[in-house]
Amino acid sequence: MDERTALRALAVDLPGAGDDAAVVGAQVVTTDMLHESTDFPAGTTRYTAGWRAVGASLSDVAAMGAAATAAVAAYGAPALDEDELRAFVGGARDVCESVGAEYVGGDLDTHDEFTVATTALGDVSDDGAVLRSGASSGEVVCVTGALGRSAAGLRAFEAGDVERGNDLFRFPPRVASGVAVAPHATAMMDSSDGLARSLHQLAEASDCGFDVSWDSLPVHDAVADYAGGDGDEREMAAYFGEDFELVFTVPESDLSAVRASAPVPVTVVGEVTAEGIVADGEPVPDEGYTHASNG
Amino acid sequence: MDERTALRALAVDLPGAGDDAAVVGAQVVTTDMLHESTDFPAGTTRYTAGWRAVGASLSDVAAMGAAATAAVAAYGAPALDEDELRAFVGGARDVCESVGAEYVGGDLDTHDEFTVATTALGDVSDDGAVLRSGASSGEVVCVTGALGRSAAGLRAFEAGDVERGNDLFRFPPRVASGVAVAPHATAMMDSSDGLARSLHQLAEASDCGFDVSWDSLPVHDAVADYAGGDGDEREMAAYFGEDFELVFTVPESDLSAVRASAPVPVTVVGEVTAEGIVADGEPVPDEGYTHASNG
Repeated sequence: MDERTALRALAVDLPGAGDDAAVVGAQVVTTDMLHESTDFPAGTTRYTAGWRAVGASLSDVAAMGAAATAAVAAYGAPALDEDELRAFVGGARDVCESVGAEYVGGDLDTHDEFTVATTALGDVSDDGAVLRSGASSGEVVCVTGALGRSAAGLRAFEAGDVERGNDLFRFPPRVASGVAVAPHATAMMDSSDGLARSLHQLAEASDCGFDVSWDSLPVHDAVADYAGGDGDEREMAAYFGEDFELVFTVPESDLSAVRASAPVPVTVVGEVTAEGIVADGEPVPDEGYTHASNG
Repeated sequence: MDERTALRALAVDLPGAGDDAAVVGAQVVTTDMLHESTDFPAGTTRYTAGWRAVGASLSDVAAMGAAATAAVAAYGAPALDEDELRAFVGGARDVCESVGAEYVGGDLDTHDEFTVATTALGDVSDDGAVLRSGASSGEVVCVTGALGRSAAGLRAFEAGDVERGNDLFRFPPRVASGVAVAPHATAMMDSSDGLARSLHQLAEASDCGFDVSWDSLPVHDAVADYAGGDGDEREMAAYFGEDFELVFTVPESDLSAVRASAPVPVTVVGEVTAEGIVADGEPVPDEGYTHASNG
């Protein structure tokens, strides 16, 4: 059973599951477990790991349109080296500070493999949390920032460009954008499973379709440095995932307000349709990074 | 560097660390990572693992005198078996329900070793969170319930009595007791590192000492079934740890009010002194289960 199938099975037991974070009263809470063999390529510093692991949970808070307030992390490693630990905490604290949240500590565990579990909390806006389920036909679908950053980062690590890899892996969680977009967005999630899979998940939750244009995708500058060609650029920007941009739907009439309030560029990549997920007239396969990031 | 030394090093970076949970506004938040080789003996069911892992975090909330509100868990295992996963969620949900909290989901991760990271949230009472640092000479030191339950559970597993082991491992988190005791307690933590180590930690945080009597210790009924003699009973009840009772200090004049409001027996095990930690006139070594459970 892969993680998606397992999550579907769990949805029977946990009706609240299925969004990027769980809503508890006026708060959201989300947790993520990352570990060395799948999430931190050789060369990833502990500072980057702390930033990225906590950032992934902050991104889930952002995807609910909530203001991140606090995060904790449980840190497991074969040896509890003080320098590594302090570097990790430094990254965790700095990514929290970058979004106005507080890093308040965690747990330590001696563990065969470097493993991190992070949890972030956020305050829901007065308009309520933005779920995956509210998109309607005729709206536009947008993304914040640029896609492909993590794919490029992984290629950088693979090419031995460790400094660039670390830099690209320390992504900015889109908390301020999520809060800015929340009053307008009808559905939202982050792109951690890749844009293609995000569209499938939004479509499933909202019972809608999407018609997007590949050429409209905002692609991160670093992608061109590592891509093998156009097809590869698309793979990196639309399918690879592990990116932490926001994918959301809004009525077209709200676009100017969204762009005026969001602190990063917002790009329209397509529109919401009644059914089917197509790009330039061709079906978009439900492929990408299969992991689980719901609250 | 062991976990305690690492935690001390971290305290420089995280001044808020060092209690069972971190205080964030009017809430507390705490996280714990547990894994198979150290925390779940052979025979532990996934239901028990879910109960115990989430229960450990709820216990940290209780130790702050806060009312537990919600918990999440990140679940990592080599294979995501549906029955195991649902059993785990069942245990997590039931332990939350037992203390009036909501289990709101989590994350899944394919991981070489069965690993669980849990996070619990709680609302602080109007009197504020109960820290480890408020004990004063002349007060009494108390424990809830009975000590040695987990030590007996481990022995049960070792003896092949898997049903008893599972039963003993599903401890009741003392959330209601923590809330009842909070208006009176001057310092509090849970006994997850063992009573002896708890006394040392309370003494360090409060700058005080303790004078306890071994005979006064409330010992769990199951201890006698597995102990090899009096010395072994003390080892199981006072040093082994992994128990989740509350250890707290109160002015003696508050004792009757504490006992009237707490839903479980409260036993006075000694008094707060100016310095030194002694039992029956002998120094109590700072020994027990060395792990980390601070927020």
